[in-house]
Amino acid sequence: MRAVDLIEKKRDGAELSAGEIRWLVGEYVAGRVPDYQMAAFLMAVYFRGMSEDETVALTQAMADSGERIDLSAVPGIKVDKHSTGGVGDTVTLVLVPLMAAAGLVVAKLSGRALGHTGGTIDKFEAIPGLRTELTLAEIRAQAEAIGAVIADHTADVVPADRLLYELRDVTATVPSLPLIASSVLSKKLAGGADAIVLDVKCGDGAFMRDEGQARRLAETLVRVGNKLGKKFSALVTAMDEPLGTMAGNALEVKQAIEALRGGGPADLREVTLALGAELLVLAGEALDPAAAKARLGELISSGKAWAKFRDLVAAQGGDVRAIEEPERLPKAKRVAEVCAPASGYVTELRAHPIGVACGLLGAGREVKGQAVDPAAGVELLAKVGDEVERGQPVARLHSGRPDRLAAAEELVAGAYTIGPERPAPRPLVLGRIGPSTGGGAGGR
Amino acid sequence: MRAVDLIEKKRDGAELSAGEIRWLVGEYVAGRVPDYQMAAFLMAVYFRGMSEDETVALTQAMADSGERIDLSAVPGIKVDKHSTGGVGDTVTLVLVPLMAAAGLVVAKLSGRALGHTGGTIDKFEAIPGLRTELTLAEIRAQAEAIGAVIADHTADVVPADRLLYELRDVTATVPSLPLIASSVLSKKLAGGADAIVLDVKCGDGAFMRDEGQARRLAETLVRVGNKLGKKFSALVTAMDEPLGTMAGNALEVKQAIEALRGGGPADLREVTLALGAELLVLAGEALDPAAAKARLGELISSGKAWAKFRDLVAAQGGDVRAIEEPERLPKAKRVAEVCAPASGYVTELRAHPIGVACGLLGAGREVKGQAVDPAAGVELLAKVGDEVERGQPVARLHSGRPDRLAAAEELVAGAYTIGPERPAPRPLVLGRIGPSTGGGAGGR
Repeated sequence: MRAVDLIEKKRDGAELSAGEIRWLVGEYVAGRVPDYQMAAFLMAVYFRGMSEDETVALTQAMADSGERIDLSAVPGIKVDKHSTGGVGDTVTLVLVPLMAAAGLVVAKLSGRALGHTGGTIDKFEAIPGLRTELTLAEIRAQAEAIGAVIADHTADVVPADRLLYELRDVTATVPSLPLIASSVLSKKLAGGADAIVLDVKCGDGAFMRDEGQARRLAETLVRVGNKLGKKFSALVTAMDEPLGTMAGNALEVKQAIEALRGGGPADLREVTLALGAELLVLAGEALDPAAAKARLGELISSGKAWAKFRDLVAAQGGDVRAIEEPERLPKAKRVAEVCAPASGYVTELRAHPIGVACGLLGAGREVKGQAVDPAAGVELLAKVGDEVERGQPVARLHSGRPDRLAAAEELVAGAYTIGPERPAPRPLVLGRIGPSTGGGAGGR
Repeated sequence: MRAVDLIEKKRDGAELSAGEIRWLVGEYVAGRVPDYQMAAFLMAVYFRGMSEDETVALTQAMADSGERIDLSAVPGIKVDKHSTGGVGDTVTLVLVPLMAAAGLVVAKLSGRALGHTGGTIDKFEAIPGLRTELTLAEIRAQAEAIGAVIADHTADVVPADRLLYELRDVTATVPSLPLIASSVLSKKLAGGADAIVLDVKCGDGAFMRDEGQARRLAETLVRVGNKLGKKFSALVTAMDEPLGTMAGNALEVKQAIEALRGGGPADLREVTLALGAELLVLAGEALDPAAAKARLGELISSGKAWAKFRDLVAAQGGDVRAIEEPERLPKAKRVAEVCAPASGYVTELRAHPIGVACGLLGAGREVKGQAVDPAAGVELLAKVGDEVERGQPVARLHSGRPDRLAAAEELVAGAYTIGPERPAPRPLVLGRIGPSTGGGAGGR
């Protein structure tokens, strides 16, 4: 087989066989197909798409490119979740202990911040002492011991995804439905879970801004995912304004603690319970989402979810006092306020500039490998629908970089639109693609 | 400027500025834009095409990537030709001395065989002692002294084309109109000629099999070429059967000698005179093609063209006795005959398998850098329209590789179709795109 022939085949719109795709991925990961041929192939995929069978084959080949997390010896139903990324999206920190409290097992691999979106690993590491770089053996042992793990992606699991993602990032081939789907699903396939819920975010702060696009991605993910022998379900959720009221690392840990203690913002709770309910239903632990949500609410109000979070933090070497007394979490040297330029109602609060401001303040990274400031971020004092008075603080900026405050203030102020009328409430969960959703066209 | 942004711009169908294209080519040749980004860009160009302005800018940037052949100090009108490649296409060896005999100056850079098509440099080097690797100074001096040069492409002239062509070859991005056009035209732009004729071949043995495609390429070449400040004209010529009766290196030199001495096959003479007439008219040396052809016929019958060929061979160190007595040219150890399987008329003689057979016999190369056998090739004893009897030899195979004879025989026999009716004669020159041809759509 020659790579150039497979590129040509895809370029001309023909369907590649599973064997051809497996060969291409294997040779690429082995370094025998060079980056320039893979780049041309990826651009051809961008234009020609992939059939569902091709996407399944690509996902499987990627999942097989490294080790898998084998949880088969761990008793219980293994679940997992994935979010396509947003601003203030601290759901994982709440959902993982909540699922473990419900008796399920979650060994979640997460990523770091890049661009305008945060990363669960950076957030979790804001807890002093906490380790996320676990070996596969440590992940298995902790999953068995407490049912909950949040670990950094390791180089051993799905190396093809890391290589392909880095190449796509510099060759303008990121926004391709089958390439996005195979990236997400290959990691879930290698992650060892039986049932997975996907949070496909949509709006200003999300990768997909258009609801139709987000829905198509969610449908592709569920359809392809279910062909891979796992149970998948997806929610399309709004990411026009940030989720919750905090964006940043330690700030989002604080927010997760509030939520696990039964408080916190309503939108964070709503999305977390909706995703958790999908998992309980997929796992056969609840008959319907309403019953599942009721049960999850009890696990929070009874303190069981919170206790599981303490176990999780302790198991990974984190300082439990820092979560019991969140004022012990890293604090920024400087806090500046952003004030409302007019009186009225917040009609819009764009998530994207808030995410960019967080990065500027030190919470994110511009290039891979940079250290992040655990204390940096943006606290939102007013969200869409809130009434504000001119001069009233609407946000607080936390940073160790005073030189960045003016630019971040500009971004955060510009993210707010204030108008005379209270806007109509908008739904948070925009769509649900359950596991039985099937048929239809491929992911072209 | 970032390469990824330019890839994205082209991917999304936007038009790149001349400055952006110049930056991309310059950074690529300098090694600061890696192959994988250029590969993704080329695939995006394959799908999105390029406007005429983009193609002009790409051509200029490529021509500027190295040295140009500066013939400004050489008196006389400088002309050049280019063929998109065919089987048995020995026109250059005839046309270069013919143009010089007409008082024009031709410093022709040519290539080597690759794939099923021959290369003028390999053919010319079949003459013992002959050198084609000339320096720019040698090219200029010889152009001034005798008005004729046939030299190998040097690494100093249009290095961008060499790099891009090698990348396109392995990334399935060869068949793109603007990429083909910029490759051809950048070399002509750097070649120092004032007027250039292009022979766009079309048919079984050509890169373009479809006449419409060939015509679009010819139109794009002439339109873009004329925007570059040179005079361009193009002929679309048939390449269904091989040109002439010889395919191979020394065999084609023999054929060129016949043509320069006033003999040789009618089709080779017709295409050569048609291309030469275009150049004479472009150069203002003849009022119309008919007058130009008459003059070229005189230059052949008077022996002036032949004398110029001897000067050319001598100037480049070739053994003049070997062209005066062509039996001194390299001869194959083995000659095998292919016989007609039936009686009738040759209704079809496909050029592509003949070209492949030549390569198999040793006249071509499978990978770059391989040596070629100057004596190997195929001699066609019957062409389309000829009457043959069952068992009569229709072709001779020349080779030093007896192990390849059976396969080559199979290919050559399969290239012939013999039927009961004499086929109607088909035109050789299928279209002419003169320098005034303009307007119309871009080269997408």
